[in-house]
Amino acid sequence: MNFSWGREVNYYETDRMGVVHHSNYLRILEEARSAWLDENILSYSEIEKMGVIIPFISAVQDFKGFLRFGDRFSVEVALIKYNSVEVIFGYVVTNTTTGIECMRAQTAHCFSRDALKTGGEYTPFSIKKEYPELHEKMLGFVEKGADVRRVRL
Amino acid sequence: MNFSWGREVNYYETDRMGVVHHSNYLRILEEARSAWLDENILSYSEIEKMGVIIPFISAVQDFKGFLRFGDRFSVEVALIKYNSVEVIFGYVVTNTTTGIECMRAQTAHCFSRDALKTGGEYTPFSIKKEYPELHEKMLGFVEKGADVRRVRL
Amino acid sequence: MNFSWGREVNYYETDRMGVVHHSNYLRILEEARSAWLDENILSYSEIEKMGVIIPFISAVQDFKGFLRFGDRFSVEVALIKYNSVEVIFGYVVTNTTTGIECMRAQTAHCFSRDALKTGGEYTPFSIKKEYPELHEKMLGFVEKGADVRRVRL
Amino acid sequence: MNFSWGREVNYYETDRMGVVHHSNYLRILEEARSAWLDENILSYSEIEKMGVIIPFISAVQDFKGFLRFGDRFSVEVALIKYNSVEVIFGYVVTNTTTGIECMRAQTAHCFSRDALKTGGEYTPFSIKKEYPELHEKMLGFVEKGADVRRVRL
Repeated sequence: MNFSWGREVNYYETDRMGVVHHSNYLRILEEARSAWLDENILSYSEIEKMGVIIPFISAVQDFKGFLRFGDRFSVEVALIKYNSVEVIFGYVVTNTTTGIECMRAQTAHCFSRDALKTGGEYTPFSIKKEYPELHEKMLGFVEKGADVRRVRL
Repeated sequence: MNFSWGREVNYYETDRMGVVHHSNYLRILEEARSAWLDENILSYSEIEKMGVIIPFISAVQDFKGFLRFGDRFSVEVALIKYNSVEVIFGYVVTNTTTGIECMRAQTAHCFSRDALKTGGEYTPFSIKKEYPELHEKMLGFVEKGADVRRVRL
Repeated sequence: MNFSWGREVNYYETDRMGVVHHSNYLRILEEARSAWLDENILSYSEIEKMGVIIPFISAVQDFKGFLRFGDRFSVEVALIKYNSVEVIFGYVVTNTTTGIECMRAQTAHCFSRDALKTGGEYTPFSIKKEYPELHEKMLGFVEKGADVRRVRL
Repeated sequence: MNFSWGREVNYYETDRMGVVHHSNYLRILEEARSAWLDENILSYSEIEKMGVIIPFISAVQDFKGFLRFGDRFSVEVALIKYNSVEVIFGYVVTNTTTGIECMRAQTAHCFSRDALKTGGEYTPFSIKKEYPELHEKMLGFVEKGADVRRVRL
C-alpha cells in the first residue's frame, strides 16, 4: 500500500473548459509530495530550515481524465528511486468522485544548498556527508519499499 | 492622459465561468504597476536590487464586467498619493475587445528593507534619507501629476 | 463564535519575498467561503448545478502580516449582509503558527443565472422567487446571526 | 528557423526560491503555443468558437536552469507531429537575460468537440472530415516543416 493524500478541487483551479487546468497538476503533486515528506521523512519546511532545497529536474505527466469543481481526488505517491543526489517519485491521481484515473506522473529532483542563504547558485550535491540524518531517513524508506508497479507510467 | 498598459487574456487565467478569475486581477494590476515603474521611475527588479521592496498594505476592487479568453484589455494606472513612506495607485481595467469597463481598483503600498537580505522582518520605513534618488523620482512624478479623477472608485 | 476554516500554506503560493503572494488571498477567501457554504447552506457545486452562480462585485483587503511556507492559518468567516440579490462576507485571516493576524477583508457578491447554460450574460437577479429554498436557507442563517464586529475592517 | 515568442518574468510567477515556480512553465508554454497558433494557423479563441478544443494528453519537461524576476525569456516552438487526431509540440525555453537554457519540453494534445456546447464529454476525434479547413492549415504547416532537431529532448 502506497501513501495516499487527497482533497477537493478548488474553484480557482478550473479553467474555461470547466476542468482543472493542466498546469495545476504539478501544484497538486507538490502538495501530495509535501504530505509524503511530512509523513515519512521530515516536513519540507524543516528540510529548508536545515539549508537543503529540492529543485525539479524533470517531470512527465500522462493526462487520462478530468477533475471538475466539487470533485474529490486522491494522489498515490511512491518513492521510485533515491540515492544521495537524486530522488524520483511516481504518482497516480484519481478522481474519487467518479472513480476515474486522471493522471500518472513521475518527477525527478536533486538536492541543493539554499542559494538564498549561500548567495550562490542552486547546484546539486550529495546530502550523504553533510546531512547524514536526512540521508538515513530517505534510505530507510527505500528499504521499507514502495509498490512501484502501481505508479508505473 | 494617464499611463496605460495592456495585453491579451491567457487561457490559464479563465475559470469554470469562462471568464478571468477574480483573483487574477491583482496579478494584472501588478503587471501594469510594474510597467508604470519601468516607464516612470525605475524597473522594480532594479529597485529590489537596491534593497527596497514595496509590499501591499491594502486593495479595493470594484468588479464591473468580464474578460474572456481572446479578449484584449488595457489598464490605466495613476499615482494617487506618494509620501516617502506610502504610495497609492488607482487603476481602470477596460476590455478593449468589447469596450466595456471591467474593474476599478486602488492599491496602497509601503516601502520596506528586503528582509531576505537583512534577515529581519518586512517593516515600513521612509525612503527619503536612505534612497534620495528614488524619493526624488517619485516626487518628480507627483509634481508632474496624474489625472486622478479618471481612476476614482 | 463565527465559522472558521484553515489549512497549511502551499509552497507554490509563496513568492520571491518568501511570503504568500498577495493575489493568493482572494483564493484562500474563496476556499473559506466555499467551506462556509458547505457547512451552513449548500455546497457551491450543488448551487451551480441548480443554475445559480455567485460572481464578485467588490473586494476590500487590509494586509497586516505575512504567511510563510510551513505556517498554518485560519480564516474566520461571517455573513455580514444578505438580501435576495446581494451577499456580503467579512473575513479575518490569522497566521496560527505565529499568532499574528494577516488580513481583514470584505467581499460582496450578487446572484446570477449561469450564462454558460442560458447562453446570455451574467446578470444579477433576485433568488427569492425562483430559488425559494436557497433564499430561505440564507435568510435562516442571517436570523441565527454572525458576530459581525469580529470581522470589522 | 523555428517560431519564437517571449516576454519578461512576472513577480507573481516567482516562488520562495526566488525563481519561476516549476508549475508556471506549462502556463508559459501555453502562451507560446497560443502565439504559434495565432501566427501559423488560427487564433485558439477562433478555433474554440468553431467548436474545437485541444486538450492535453501528455507533457514531458526537462528543467535545466532558472528564470528570475526581471529576466526576459524566449520560447522556441516547433510542431513535431500532426495527424488529424493528435498534435505534438517541442519547446526550448531560454533565459535571454543570462543566455542560459532553462527548459526543454514536449506536449501532446488531441482534438475534441467542446463538451460545454455538446453537453457530453471531451472525447478525441479526427478533425479531417468536419473541419477540413483547419486540417489543411495544420497539414500545410507540417509540409513547410519545422526544425525538429533544435527542440529535441
